[in-house]
Amino acid sequence: MKIGILGYGNLGRGVECAAKQNADMEVTCVFTRRDPSTVKILTPTAKVYNVKDILEHKDEVDVLIICGGSATDLPEMTPEYAKYFNVIDSFDTHANIPTHFANVDKASKDTDHIAMISVGWDPGMFSLNRVYADAILPDGKDYTFWGRGVSQGHSDAIRRVEGVQDARQYTVPVPSALEAVRNGEMPELTTRQKHTRECYVVAKEGADKAKIEKEIKEMPNYFADYDTTVTFISQEELDRDHKGIPHGGCVIRSGVTGWNRENTHVIEYKLTLDSNPEFTTSALVAYARALDRMYKEGKRGCLTVLDVAPKYLSAKSDEELLAHML
Amino acid sequence: MKIGILGYGNLGRGVECAAKQNADMEVTCVFTRRDPSTVKILTPTAKVYNVKDILEHKDEVDVLIICGGSATDLPEMTPEYAKYFNVIDSFDTHANIPTHFANVDKASKDTDHIAMISVGWDPGMFSLNRVYADAILPDGKDYTFWGRGVSQGHSDAIRRVEGVQDARQYTVPVPSALEAVRNGEMPELTTRQKHTRECYVVAKEGADKAKIEKEIKEMPNYFADYDTTVTFISQEELDRDHKGIPHGGCVIRSGVTGWNRENTHVIEYKLTLDSNPEFTTSALVAYARALDRMYKEGKRGCLTVLDVAPKYLSAKSDEELLAHML
Repeated sequence: MKIGILGYGNLGRGVECAAKQNADMEVTCVFTRRDPSTVKILTPTAKVYNVKDILEHKDEVDVLIICGGSATDLPEMTPEYAKYFNVIDSFDTHANIPTHFANVDKASKDTDHIAMISVGWDPGMFSLNRVYADAILPDGKDYTFWGRGVSQGHSDAIRRVEGVQDARQYTVPVPSALEAVRNGEMPELTTRQKHTRECYVVAKEGADKAKIEKEIKEMPNYFADYDTTVTFISQEELDRDHKGIPHGGCVIRSGVTGWNRENTHVIEYKLTLDSNPEFTTSALVAYARALDRMYKEGKRGCLTVLDVAPKYLSAKSDEELLAHML
Repeated sequence: MKIGILGYGNLGRGVECAAKQNADMEVTCVFTRRDPSTVKILTPTAKVYNVKDILEHKDEVDVLIICGGSATDLPEMTPEYAKYFNVIDSFDTHANIPTHFANVDKASKDTDHIAMISVGWDPGMFSLNRVYADAILPDGKDYTFWGRGVSQGHSDAIRRVEGVQDARQYTVPVPSALEAVRNGEMPELTTRQKHTRECYVVAKEGADKAKIEKEIKEMPNYFADYDTTVTFISQEELDRDHKGIPHGGCVIRSGVTGWNRENTHVIEYKLTLDSNPEFTTSALVAYARALDRMYKEGKRGCLTVLDVAPKYLSAKSDEELLAHML
């Protein structure tokens, strides 16, 4: 299976790493908006091309993994390239998924391609666990907790505050809330009761730290609804202690069964990730395999993780799965 | 959707409870080997018939859920009734799954039916989580822990010991092993290091307790390879404190990513169940819905949970799933 990468940042590099672990796939091309000669990639056998020449390399790619941002890149790029390639992306703006799906579905169906959107962990593995758990325990309640992990969006928001040189924000589930949910208590939880936000901030020389702290804590949408702590540290400390991009979280559903609702069950799916982008791309390449197989079986149009049977993701044969994994 | 139940014990009752929670399905018939007039069921609108008359009621059943034991019932019953019905079972003898699959596949294909085997939690939800995690993190290690929960097979084994009146056995994961796995340490673990076995035993009057304890602890396959504790209690205590059939466990995969394998990830799927049979039947009815839909789409032959896309389990529409669950 030949994989093309469109866009070369953390996700693009992650796809290379993930493909290397799978004997049945190889990265053949990386397409970039930059001058290809300035882009250094990891895979010795892959070529770097400018994205303007992408159509010349259609035959070198079975599935094109689009590694762009959800805010502006993917809503344009995925429907556009779905006209020429079988594409897959990690679009993660939940509210806009139906629109993005419709656009990609039309583009891929019109041109006899297959496509998949919103692959990763949330949306992605968390989504399918929400669906499985909801179907099995219809009389219950769902919870999604994120963290402890770095939120890139919140870190960026802090960096835009006047006087801030650099910052890293961790989203942290509230332990007592998690415990109540895991105990099957099915609590009603406000935003503030579910997560806290920890901010590590490097102030510029001479900046007013009290003012920075106040501005962060009162920022609407990002921090105002949370218990937020702000810790000022040096750039050296930030670079040394907060370099990674760990993330994770859990989807928990608790529900009751029995003729008189007398029994309680808890289903939990939990991820603890050293590298958010590398886990996302590990999911992307497994679903790229599924996409390629379903294309060969005649499937067309846009899919999500909810449309894909688990066996399509696996490099193992049906016989192997039946004998050893079931 | 009309559900038939074949065999009326804990599982049969569980199917009734689960179907009651789903507005799109109803239990129409219960088939039993006993005299139907002696079988009292929960669903007021369902009828009880003797299994010898089952073929007269083919039109009253869309999916027949076969609620039998894996040792002797299901290997015979599922292939037999797959000739006349769309059937689903919870066959759980892992080693015999390929044979059982082949038998049911042939019977259902020959007669233009669809079938599904080994639905529940292990095999079942645990299986598909093993497959997802293995596909996403190919460079890693799998662990399955069971418990804390009641093992019916081990409880039965103790009851067969001379001088034992009643018994209940709990399988318990070793906390330090679980912790090492959750930390991503990928330890090598022996059988003894993964689980302990707690036995609550009611001795008959005048029985030799030391002899009973020794015999349990040295029992090959069941207890000899484990650290086993035996606690003697009264029948009243057993009935009062050990009446439930809770179970659960977790599937954990830990794996590395990155060009130099520098990042570690842990995926955990965990179940905490008040009632083992009721959770199993909750999964069975969700997959019965999937089976009925896939049948209507033209699918035939035997499937497992690995062949079913998550959306088929859900009572929600595609649009609802896309907008709210993804």
